[in-house]
Amino acid sequence: MKILDKVNYPQDLKKLTLSQLTALCSEIRQLILDTVFRCGGHLSSNLGAVETVVALHYVFNAPKDKIIFDVGHQCYAHKILTGRKDLLSTLRGDEGLAGFPKRQESVYDVANTGHASTSISLACGLARALNDGEQIVSFIGDGAMTGGLTYEALNDLACLKKKQIIVLNDNEMSISKNVGLISDYLQRLKREKVTRPFALFGLKYVGIVDGHDLKALIKAFNKAKNSEDAVIIHVLTKKGKGYADAEENPEKYHGYSVSAQKYPTFSQICGEKLCELAQKDSDVYAVTAAMASGTGLDVYEKKFPERFADVGIAEAHAACMCAGLAIGGKKPYFAVYSTFLQRAYDQLVHDICLNNLPVTLCIDRCGVVAGDGETHQGVFDISFMRALPSLTVFAPKDGEELRAVLDWSLNYDKPLAIRYPKAEDDFEYSVHTPIEPGKWEYVLQDSASDAVIIATGAICVKNACKAAEILKENGISVDVINARFISPMDETMLRKIASKKIFTSEDGVRTGGLGEGIISYYAENGIKADVTVFAFDKFPYPQGSVNFILKSTGTDAQSIAARITDKVKNEA
Amino acid sequence: MKILDKVNYPQDLKKLTLSQLTALCSEIRQLILDTVFRCGGHLSSNLGAVETVVALHYVFNAPKDKIIFDVGHQCYAHKILTGRKDLLSTLRGDEGLAGFPKRQESVYDVANTGHASTSISLACGLARALNDGEQIVSFIGDGAMTGGLTYEALNDLACLKKKQIIVLNDNEMSISKNVGLISDYLQRLKREKVTRPFALFGLKYVGIVDGHDLKALIKAFNKAKNSEDAVIIHVLTKKGKGYADAEENPEKYHGYSVSAQKYPTFSQICGEKLCELAQKDSDVYAVTAAMASGTGLDVYEKKFPERFADVGIAEAHAACMCAGLAIGGKKPYFAVYSTFLQRAYDQLVHDICLNNLPVTLCIDRCGVVAGDGETHQGVFDISFMRALPSLTVFAPKDGEELRAVLDWSLNYDKPLAIRYPKAEDDFEYSVHTPIEPGKWEYVLQDSASDAVIIATGAICVKNACKAAEILKENGISVDVINARFISPMDETMLRKIASKKIFTSEDGVRTGGLGEGIISYYAENGIKADVTVFAFDKFPYPQGSVNFILKSTGTDAQSIAARITDKVKNEA
Repeated sequence: MKILDKVNYPQDLKKLTLSQLTALCSEIRQLILDTVFRCGGHLSSNLGAVETVVALHYVFNAPKDKIIFDVGHQCYAHKILTGRKDLLSTLRGDEGLAGFPKRQESVYDVANTGHASTSISLACGLARALNDGEQIVSFIGDGAMTGGLTYEALNDLACLKKKQIIVLNDNEMSISKNVGLISDYLQRLKREKVTRPFALFGLKYVGIVDGHDLKALIKAFNKAKNSEDAVIIHVLTKKGKGYADAEENPEKYHGYSVSAQKYPTFSQICGEKLCELAQKDSDVYAVTAAMASGTGLDVYEKKFPERFADVGIAEAHAACMCAGLAIGGKKPYFAVYSTFLQRAYDQLVHDICLNNLPVTLCIDRCGVVAGDGETHQGVFDISFMRALPSLTVFAPKDGEELRAVLDWSLNYDKPLAIRYPKAEDDFEYSVHTPIEPGKWEYVLQDSASDAVIIATGAICVKNACKAAEILKENGISVDVINARFISPMDETMLRKIASKKIFTSEDGVRTGGLGEGIISYYAENGIKADVTVFAFDKFPYPQGSVNFILKSTGTDAQSIAARITDKVKNEA
Repeated sequence: MKILDKVNYPQDLKKLTLSQLTALCSEIRQLILDTVFRCGGHLSSNLGAVETVVALHYVFNAPKDKIIFDVGHQCYAHKILTGRKDLLSTLRGDEGLAGFPKRQESVYDVANTGHASTSISLACGLARALNDGEQIVSFIGDGAMTGGLTYEALNDLACLKKKQIIVLNDNEMSISKNVGLISDYLQRLKREKVTRPFALFGLKYVGIVDGHDLKALIKAFNKAKNSEDAVIIHVLTKKGKGYADAEENPEKYHGYSVSAQKYPTFSQICGEKLCELAQKDSDVYAVTAAMASGTGLDVYEKKFPERFADVGIAEAHAACMCAGLAIGGKKPYFAVYSTFLQRAYDQLVHDICLNNLPVTLCIDRCGVVAGDGETHQGVFDISFMRALPSLTVFAPKDGEELRAVLDWSLNYDKPLAIRYPKAEDDFEYSVHTPIEPGKWEYVLQDSASDAVIIATGAICVKNACKAAEILKENGISVDVINARFISPMDETMLRKIASKKIFTSEDGVRTGGLGEGIISYYAENGIKADVTVFAFDKFPYPQGSVNFILKSTGTDAQSIAARITDKVKNEA
């Protein structure tokens, strides 16, 4: 019988001996490995955090005590220990257990998270709100320490003078190798004796604690628990701990995918094309915020290290720094995930667009993202970017068009955003017309068509073509237009097709999206048109595969075909 | 003859003796005083920076060397010394000289700015881009050091290992008294000897320099200029220097207005009403990011210091910390300017909306803001907030309705945004209906009306009423609806009025705004409607008074009346 069989909630831990706890860690680690190899998920960070999480739940009394997981991709052991071990088999699946903390799932999850650097900030709020002796613990990686939000929170904490415990999980990595002064400083603490580290931040320092030594962890956490002061505990862990391959290559195993790759991803295509541009033009400069491998820039980094910057988890700085690069005459490309660009919204407005600078955003993970759930769905970028008059927004239908727009961007002298999904370039088009500012193209065209689908982006154009195929089998002919320029729109094309039944498809929220823009264009120009919009209404979306989510939002190929059939047949 | 008469550009400075430079500073200070008392503008920070700016231009060679003003409300002396002294009389006026640096105005202005904490970030980009021996100087106040962007930039700078000069203008203030660890640390540097301050950031420290002693400033700047390292120069200045009233009360003279106040502002009404709520409900908590007086929270801070937080210039943290407060059971109110909320966009999405927490945003300076220009125009918030499905967005028509919605907010258990302009509550309405979720109200109603104006927010509802008056004189009767709930919209009302000619008016960008939302609602529900949208198309807007900007965008009362007349008469 396993020890884990008897452990369902944190209180069950407190009866165990140290050797039982140690054995429990092995069992948890094995369960994480089994689960991730079956469901996919975050491996390295979860393996590295097992002992720390076990010790936290051994020492503190959740849910009264608040344990806040920064980002949250180290929370699997926590989920296992808080009533959810039997649900772990549904991890990241359709409507299954979330890969990140989620309040709706458990009272032990303090906040829904997924983006970095929020834990100490949330803790500052909790420390002000609670006064019944609750312990407040932030569990934060050294990677998330580069985010400005962490610093703003530490700054506030220094004034607040309330008890708070920060467990600094130092594994020397963000997803890639960590960068910056905190990282350097942590290295220094390992090499030499520093008087009162973190005194600048008003924090009492406890460390260095071996993050795989349960006894040492428990001792340190008890010390912090009994202290009156704000405490930072410096815990040293190894990403991927307990699984040799992951220990040796933690970046590769940061996110583990169960499906085998067949075609290059858009991220890879972007990275490779940027290498080509850099070869051609010595002003090209690529920037990432701790996402070199995720965005495909890892190949670029190796080839052009002198024209590459990884600024750490610091999207606001990355965007503003790109403005500085452009002012200095460079052609910066900032590769960033859609939802993380939300962190640089003001820099996009204030530093890039108001200065009208030739910064190109390569926006990855746009639209629906499988598995990672609501915090990673890139469904707002169309709306928040369309509203910026000086920003050109482009979405390629496939890899070839992504390459073409990147070529085109070299001579474009204004802010440009290129958005594409987390997906493989797996669909073949016969049509590839040259890129002209604000011009769309027909992907399918039939002079006798009953209707037209205006779709934007790789996922939606592909699904529009699939819907057209289904419709054709039912005797309905539709054109498909690739609305690659989301902003500005192709007004000539819009006028040309106004008499047809129009359907629009985008992988973003309806409000402020392309569909609403098209409807408004017609209305404001006094043109009668019949437009139906496929976009996302509710939020958050159910977690799951891309097709599951598209289906549940009524925006997959089948749903589109069904609704068009309905409309064309009933209104014929 | 004045020395300033012979000084037009930085090179003219270099011929002057120290005593001439000293006299020049007095002349500049007098010119700033004369200008601000006539035109309005930022007084305290500009008076405090005169000697530093003169010394910077004496030592460095702009525009080859790049002097970056953080925020930029200390740039008047710089404008005077870079070819613009004769334009100073147009400062902040209709299409006049901008109150902040502006690239379109001068090659000496490195970037358009207005928001804090961008300078070192821009400098990191410039340091990477330039390689012809250009000196790069960031001139940043201690207030802007609390912003996370500064920290992200310092973190990057620590890795970058390129020369850069940071002039830290320590006046112990943001707009209010400064807070936080950097502030405490700077105080400590004044009290005691610290070994290698800022070594953590990899910066060579020069200081403390008296910021009103030209000789000392020139010496320090030359030292930094000749250094190979990244240097931080700690300059101590006095806000308001040279004008006794401003020295004694720098916060009062931060922004000086030439027009006398007649009615309470929306900011004041908000601050006072929050006091009343705090009296009633012990869970009420008010939060500001260094804007206690600007947002009207100064009265609240005095009455309820234990339920108030000024976190410094750190909007992202303020928003995320509010999420923590709400998780802990408090009712947080975050009072923030519209354009500064752009800095907390991801925290609004990720921490407040995804967690569906009862955080209330009191959004000040929405819509057109006079004088401060493009960086302060709150014209994007309607678009970026409407796109968030779980956020309720409200815009009161007047002070009484602002009080009413704040009362209503106490029992509202979801994210809520209340937006209002920088304006006095100067218009009287006879109608004040109780607030019901998603319900609009008629402000003017006539059963024989030809058209209806749907307006949102204090400025637009007022102008709609004024337009209605003008139209009445021309024999055209229009209803005016107060669309106080921007999201969700009043669909019952929209259906009811669908047969009339509809005009919408909002003080935000057209794309993704309320007007587009109304057009889309009708189109998507198959309801025929004739809708004309008044909103902002181009960007940036000309700088000037509110009426000047509304007029130039065709959205003032007269323009609205003219267009309605046109439409009603021609299509009758």
